[in-house]
Amino acid sequence: MGNVRTANISVSLDGYSAGPQQTHENPLGTGGERLHDWVVALGAWRKRHGKDGGEANASSAVVERWQANIGATIMGRNMFGGGPGPWGDDPWEGWWGPEPPFGHPVFVLTHHAREPFTQAETTYHFITDGIEAALERARDAAGDRDVTIAGGAQTVQQYIAAGLLEEIDISIVPIFLGGGTRLFDDLGETLPRLELVEAVAGPAATHVRYSVG
Amino acid sequence: MGNVRTANISVSLDGYSAGPQQTHENPLGTGGERLHDWVVALGAWRKRHGKDGGEANASSAVVERWQANIGATIMGRNMFGGGPGPWGDDPWEGWWGPEPPFGHPVFVLTHHAREPFTQAETTYHFITDGIEAALERARDAAGDRDVTIAGGAQTVQQYIAAGLLEEIDISIVPIFLGGGTRLFDDLGETLPRLELVEAVAGPAATHVRYSVG
Repeated sequence: MGNVRTANISVSLDGYSAGPQQTHENPLGTGGERLHDWVVALGAWRKRHGKDGGEANASSAVVERWQANIGATIMGRNMFGGGPGPWGDDPWEGWWGPEPPFGHPVFVLTHHAREPFTQAETTYHFITDGIEAALERARDAAGDRDVTIAGGAQTVQQYIAAGLLEEIDISIVPIFLGGGTRLFDDLGETLPRLELVEAVAGPAATHVRYSVG
Repeated sequence: MGNVRTANISVSLDGYSAGPQQTHENPLGTGGERLHDWVVALGAWRKRHGKDGGEANASSAVVERWQANIGATIMGRNMFGGGPGPWGDDPWEGWWGPEPPFGHPVFVLTHHAREPFTQAETTYHFITDGIEAALERARDAAGDRDVTIAGGAQTVQQYIAAGLLEEIDISIVPIFLGGGTRLFDDLGETLPRLELVEAVAGPAATHVRYSVG
């Protein structure tokens, strides 16, 4: 069985994974897109997203590692997008268009049931019975490969608080956002133990990986 | 003129420089002493504090660097200690006893005036007219050497918000504290730009250094 890990979430030096004034139309909040400048510039990331070119540097191997060996992805409803409330007659099909970069099943945590649908190699499933049910479904789909918790912050926090996250992989980006959503907040009563597995100094982000016990 | 920099403040992965339930008697809060386990184990730190022995590892050079070339230290009243209110007839002489590890003038931000006093090589000065006045005094004392902002969090935040901090040097410790005082909070309206200068992977902490513009 693979690991349950974060999908290398980028955080500002002040700990935010999204900036202030988050909306359903702008889920990264004000300034939050700067969290991803380091990764979208990399060839290793661009290739996965069907784009040519891009840089190679010390961050490239980190990106290749976290994109590898994933059998299923779990994300929160806000990360998937589509506004509040039920899905409606013309439901949102995600931010990623007809060629999503996943290539494996994606499980979306939601309060509103919806039939699965498929875009290219990716099938989106909508899970209404909680984070444990979603993880069970994702583990079944992933087999020996890893399950990643893609975000947002609240979803990651729920998996930490439930003791289900096994590996934390984040990139610390040298910006202050000054407000927004902190990745590590509301972690619950029983704080897990961490062990530092790896730290890599990229030119525009510091990548740290921890096992969670 | 030297730099104005933090004195390598340790923070938990969730961003706290002190744990919950901080008091004047326990300024690091519950679990907060674990933030410093990585450094007190090092020979490079123990030597500065008059102790023998200790480990040497990738963190040692970081500790030697941040302890070097300091001409003055600024700290908040809570970090200096001594309880709330005026100093009284039998005033607190700091946590560091008769042989403080500083060896240079220390400027304590306080609302309550007090005459300076000296312990071994260290003279403590009490500054009641604000952070800019304290920095001016500290720069005069430091000459060509650096001024460090030792903490606590609120003091660091005030210097960032005023645009006076030039270098941030922190160690990210693989623990969750789950509450307490966040180092980077209330940073003001005008967020400074950061540039990553260095990241060093120690076995028990990740050390990052940024220039602040």
